[in-house]
Amino acid sequence: MSDPIARAEAANREALRLLFGGAPVLVDVRAAREVLPGLTENTVLTSGPPLPWASYTGGQRAAVLGGAVYEGLAPDLAQAEKALDRGDIVVAGCHDFSCVGSLAGVTTASMPVLVVEDANTGHRGYCTLFEGKASARLNYGVYNDEVQANLDHLANVIGPRLGEVVRSIEGGIPLRPIMERALRLGDELHSRNTAASLLFLREILPALLGRDDAQELVDYLTAGDYAFLRMSMAAGKSMADRMAGIEGSSIVTAMAFSSREFGIRVAGTGDRWFRGPLPTAESFQLFGGHTADDIEVMGGESPITEVCGLGGMAQAAAFPLQAYQGGTPQRMVERNLEMYRITAGEHPGFKIPFLSYRGTPAGIDVRLVTETGITPVMDVGIAGKGGGQIGAGCFRAPLQPFADAWTALQHA
Amino acid sequence: MSDPIARAEAANREALRLLFGGAPVLVDVRAAREVLPGLTENTVLTSGPPLPWASYTGGQRAAVLGGAVYEGLAPDLAQAEKALDRGDIVVAGCHDFSCVGSLAGVTTASMPVLVVEDANTGHRGYCTLFEGKASARLNYGVYNDEVQANLDHLANVIGPRLGEVVRSIEGGIPLRPIMERALRLGDELHSRNTAASLLFLREILPALLGRDDAQELVDYLTAGDYAFLRMSMAAGKSMADRMAGIEGSSIVTAMAFSSREFGIRVAGTGDRWFRGPLPTAESFQLFGGHTADDIEVMGGESPITEVCGLGGMAQAAAFPLQAYQGGTPQRMVERNLEMYRITAGEHPGFKIPFLSYRGTPAGIDVRLVTETGITPVMDVGIAGKGGGQIGAGCFRAPLQPFADAWTALQHA
Repeated sequence: MSDPIARAEAANREALRLLFGGAPVLVDVRAAREVLPGLTENTVLTSGPPLPWASYTGGQRAAVLGGAVYEGLAPDLAQAEKALDRGDIVVAGCHDFSCVGSLAGVTTASMPVLVVEDANTGHRGYCTLFEGKASARLNYGVYNDEVQANLDHLANVIGPRLGEVVRSIEGGIPLRPIMERALRLGDELHSRNTAASLLFLREILPALLGRDDAQELVDYLTAGDYAFLRMSMAAGKSMADRMAGIEGSSIVTAMAFSSREFGIRVAGTGDRWFRGPLPTAESFQLFGGHTADDIEVMGGESPITEVCGLGGMAQAAAFPLQAYQGGTPQRMVERNLEMYRITAGEHPGFKIPFLSYRGTPAGIDVRLVTETGITPVMDVGIAGKGGGQIGAGCFRAPLQPFADAWTALQHA
Repeated sequence: MSDPIARAEAANREALRLLFGGAPVLVDVRAAREVLPGLTENTVLTSGPPLPWASYTGGQRAAVLGGAVYEGLAPDLAQAEKALDRGDIVVAGCHDFSCVGSLAGVTTASMPVLVVEDANTGHRGYCTLFEGKASARLNYGVYNDEVQANLDHLANVIGPRLGEVVRSIEGGIPLRPIMERALRLGDELHSRNTAASLLFLREILPALLGRDDAQELVDYLTAGDYAFLRMSMAAGKSMADRMAGIEGSSIVTAMAFSSREFGIRVAGTGDRWFRGPLPTAESFQLFGGHTADDIEVMGGESPITEVCGLGGMAQAAAFPLQAYQGGTPQRMVERNLEMYRITAGEHPGFKIPFLSYRGTPAGIDVRLVTETGITPVMDVGIAGKGGGQIGAGCFRAPLQPFADAWTALQHA
């Protein structure tokens, strides 16, 4: 099989089999240092294909500095900057630690992370906890007393207690059934997680009842209708990594961006990042008063959901999303249908009621992207200059990384 | 204003204002005898425009007999039949007691009912509790030991405890916000109540936590994804009744059927029923093994939801319904759009994401129905011969009652 297309197609069948067989289970919530393989105390993880520290800009840079101070690696932001410049504090990419970061994606040793494990293969995905519905959050590039207090609360109260609850449930909480069901309840599990957050709550409720802190955990899990996104992301990482390393496969296993670049990983090329310019906005909606000039890209690894056939690949399951990220139902359907042209399969579990329960387009094939010039769409939150969330929208990946990856695979 | 159309249109504006201003609140759960105005101990309420006892057939007749025995009005079904023949036990229509019945709709004095009250006008709607997901249920025409035990459990355990919980929540539980939200989560609040049941649970959770019986109530409220239908129905009754009695108005205030007839009430003609033949099936899906020959009509007053702009009027909010009652997404959209031709307005709170958040068609106008020949669609559960639920489908009301009502209004 020297024909690279035939070779890729054969490999992709195996990759899809693995992607479609994913069985992500939430098994624990632990401080990152306890579970992330190889994470050192002086490392700050952040989103996107890794860059030299000097290259991180704006809100993502601010978030890394905030993370370093939060972790106690420096007394203040100025000292943190010097320590990072010297290399006493190290910045690294989440993906290299089986982790995925939301927006700036800052993850440090003491932060609690969701531990999601594939029931069959043990592949793990990690993600920090939702910071709540305050506009000021570290993942949106803000670090101040309020953010610090909230991160402390997550680390000292919510994380440990949620961990207790999760561990008390024998076998953990299978996330795939919740995710499959949420697609029938208006979620696409990237920018809309309203139903999944409720379904998750329902699932763990028996373990919450009788706890003195039940109300606090209930409030946390349902505030902002977004708690489940981090589980969806960690689940996505565990599912996508099942495909990593399949020789010759042209299926995407990661899409992520920093403040500077967008990048992808492909099953057949392992950990290598193919990099390109930042995604472009296709449609978006900003919270009151903000204009496009206020938008700042701070990174993001939540497109791991699109990698698995969710988010932009499942927009036609989530028409309510219009109210949040703009667009029209017609365009959402067109865009969703377009995605079938660049994916190698249709997910057997993630289905779209409006498309007569057709499986979502899943398994982004860099060859098909290259041949059609159609790149993946991603539903993402939008950060503002100076930090904080100012909206949400639908973004389009750049072509270059996909073309480069397909070239590399053809010559492998 | 002697022109009946102009008169109706003016009256309908007032009727819509009242319908659209409905603010149903669940305020209590009580035995029917404690709250239904004028209900006597020897009365068995059932669905549809009232008929003489001798006219009730099949499963609806069986359910009335079962209800009489359950209530202790007769020692067995044979004795109950004699007592009903003699008039010692009286059969009456739910709607005359501000109540709405699901399927056969049998409601007796000791059965717990949901008490839903309009926050502004005090109009009340009542409905019995969901019998759970067992196929054998009194409302589907079955009465046996299992059904009796379940009804006892509802009357002695679930009803009283749920009542305690509801009464412990100051001001009760406003249902309209839950209903508005559920339409964004794939429900149409007649044949699909999955999201609303979860949202309701979330709403009362603070009052459940710490109760020893919390798990039991949680299980009851989420089993079968249908618990909320009864709240949606009681809410519908309280909203629709706000319109009752508006002189000249051609807006429908009730649609209901017995085992023999379909009937409507109209705002401008008060309690009068306009009767016609049973609805016809437009599309349906039966549970495994059943055929159309197995279908039996046992009555139903859940189309009070369609009266309020829900159910068949909101199908395009609930594409997941295909899996339950058949049909295609395209047909659901067409049917939903068709309904705008026979309704006087668009609901300001009940909105359809797929139609760019257009308000649901609401306020069925008997004049428009008569002029267009288009009759309302209703999403209903389907009973089988011999009792039990065997499927669900979309049914079409007959034209006659609407035409008769419009004639009566023109000559009023």
